[in-house]
Amino acid sequence: MKFSCVKETLLSALSIAIRALANKANTPILTGLYLKAKDGDLEIQANNNEIGIVTHLEADVEDQGELVLPGKYLQEVTRRLPGEKVYFNFSPENGIVSITSEGVKFSLKNLNASEFPLINRLEGNTSFTIPNNSLIKLVKRTGYSCAGGDAGEARPIFTGCFLTVEEGKIVMVATNTHRLAVEREQPGNPIEELNLIIPVKVLNELVGIIDSEVPVDVRITCTESKISFECENTYIVSRLIEGKFPEYKRVFPKSIATTAVISSKEFADAINRISFIAKTSNSNIIKLEFIAERDPSEALTNTDDEYEADSTVREGKVHISSTNPEIGNADESVPLKLTGKDVNISFNVNYLIDVMKVIEGDTCTLGLNKPLEPIVVQDSDDEEFTYILTPVRTSN
Amino acid sequence: MKFSCVKETLLSALSIAIRALANKANTPILTGLYLKAKDGDLEIQANNNEIGIVTHLEADVEDQGELVLPGKYLQEVTRRLPGEKVYFNFSPENGIVSITSEGVKFSLKNLNASEFPLINRLEGNTSFTIPNNSLIKLVKRTGYSCAGGDAGEARPIFTGCFLTVEEGKIVMVATNTHRLAVEREQPGNPIEELNLIIPVKVLNELVGIIDSEVPVDVRITCTESKISFECENTYIVSRLIEGKFPEYKRVFPKSIATTAVISSKEFADAINRISFIAKTSNSNIIKLEFIAERDPSEALTNTDDEYEADSTVREGKVHISSTNPEIGNADESVPLKLTGKDVNISFNVNYLIDVMKVIEGDTCTLGLNKPLEPIVVQDSDDEEFTYILTPVRTSN
Repeated sequence: MKFSCVKETLLSALSIAIRALANKANTPILTGLYLKAKDGDLEIQANNNEIGIVTHLEADVEDQGELVLPGKYLQEVTRRLPGEKVYFNFSPENGIVSITSEGVKFSLKNLNASEFPLINRLEGNTSFTIPNNSLIKLVKRTGYSCAGGDAGEARPIFTGCFLTVEEGKIVMVATNTHRLAVEREQPGNPIEELNLIIPVKVLNELVGIIDSEVPVDVRITCTESKISFECENTYIVSRLIEGKFPEYKRVFPKSIATTAVISSKEFADAINRISFIAKTSNSNIIKLEFIAERDPSEALTNTDDEYEADSTVREGKVHISSTNPEIGNADESVPLKLTGKDVNISFNVNYLIDVMKVIEGDTCTLGLNKPLEPIVVQDSDDEEFTYILTPVRTSN
Repeated sequence: MKFSCVKETLLSALSIAIRALANKANTPILTGLYLKAKDGDLEIQANNNEIGIVTHLEADVEDQGELVLPGKYLQEVTRRLPGEKVYFNFSPENGIVSITSEGVKFSLKNLNASEFPLINRLEGNTSFTIPNNSLIKLVKRTGYSCAGGDAGEARPIFTGCFLTVEEGKIVMVATNTHRLAVEREQPGNPIEELNLIIPVKVLNELVGIIDSEVPVDVRITCTESKISFECENTYIVSRLIEGKFPEYKRVFPKSIATTAVISSKEFADAINRISFIAKTSNSNIIKLEFIAERDPSEALTNTDDEYEADSTVREGKVHISSTNPEIGNADESVPLKLTGKDVNISFNVNYLIDVMKVIEGDTCTLGLNKPLEPIVVQDSDDEEFTYILTPVRTSN
């Protein structure tokens, strides 16, 4: 087996493929990259049994063949080579692959290609396309809301994003049961039904792979237990998470007693500053007091019901604070426009920071009810996005 | 106590002082910064008993006083403040210090200033000055050769740099017993004698503190057990390491059988590339074969003694390689000029990488003897620098 290729092109392909390398080598072959050179093409495969990646690049193939090289080492070696082109030469007799470039020579031991679990193309029942930037947006604006898989305590369905179709739109939903994010996008072609839970780890890798300067379509194919994504030279296949995703719309509040419209940047800056004190303790609690400027007489006479019926938009502020009795406290106020009655409410500050990172509009809207009822966060630039956040109970 | 100061100036002073904060809080007061506001000046002190730092900045002092704030938190809070100025206000009644800037307010608990071990100015027997860039050069070109203090196995004297005077020059020496680095610089004023071992940890912090755009003098004062450095607004005091530093010149080879002159960049690049294979095993071994281009007849007839007497400069190369039987191997050659006989020699690659990082000249000179005898590395741009490196024994 003998071939050469352009170093930068190879490095790009390797940076895609290694996303599917097994990290810990229970099965050493899964820490390897499968390389097949044939007819001017180099195919690279990686497969850790959760996600599989196949990618292609141009190569000058002098003598076709296949081999498996330790993935991380192959990437490190390629990075270190000085020239523009890289030359591979494999002598099956001694099992050594020589990799040369401008007088520099590395040799790596070939693993056994016949042991590598080759990736087959899915023959799916459902198939559709979606523009890559739409798919990236779906993942970026929801994926962070999944339960962390590392804690090992989360139910598997909450370690993935739920993908479904509503009124012709693709909907992605993610939750860790304390907060939930929903985003909707237009598919490339009409689809009727879809009910899948895709591991968020796979989606995060996918975002890195399909992000290109020029918009392209991603073809998605699903079977009962697997999903594949195809985009330009790369084919990605993942297992699906088994189980039924809860009816997420049940957590949407039926009505909103108080609406606050606030500058996204000012709110995010204040939360980030004050998070410093919140994060010094394990509870991460930040307190928000939404206060409208009212005529004093008004505040004394109105009943709760009257407040709720009152749709006047008032100038007001949110007073943000956090206290750790061991360290100290922090507080500041941000102006906003308030409709409805005043509310005092507390959150895990990390869940607020997360959503403020994805909000792109100049303003965001917070929909509030009672202090222990979930709030709704919306983005002025994206009516398809909704974030539901459950407050925390505090002693004061 | 009430004062204000410019945020950026305060941040710079804090970044200096926190270098002397205790990390682990066996004594909580040592994780605090002592602040004293008086007569338009804010003094900040930190003291972890190994190194103590005093630094000053301008302040508008409305009400003088002293306090101790948790150092890391004070820095984090200051960084987060939005305005140009920072206002401190301490109410001794409740022990709370409020730190405000443009409507943002943090409060931190005051620690007990009377518990803080205040730093006194050293009254030393020996005192001299050295330009800051000379002191930085001494440390940067030798300090990395000290024994790592973390392993806990090194003799204390090898965790510091030896500072002495030879022929009117300041000499700094560092060794971990496997390699040794020496650098010489001119002092700012003549000094006669000096025999100190300064902890390298302190010297590394010092380099960060005294590095200024405009060259300035550093005043050094020593007692039996302590040393102080004074530079602009900052005063640093450190303990010295007790013990007698070995007579380092004993490890200098008395003669050199082979001299190789090589491009620093080409040699460093090759070593860095091949280090990838060397570092995959614990031994970190890299093999160097120095080979001159000779007439074949010459190689057969000359005796060792004749080679040594031969001062002809020949074209040649060093063939650099490393092998890990589990992974593979790497090799390449770099051209050089060789005087004397050919040598095969092996090193811990990290010790070669370290010295190549500090060599600034276009070429470096390697002085070699037998394969198990120390080599001498020199920099074409700096005749005051010498690096001695002991080879490793290999099976082949």
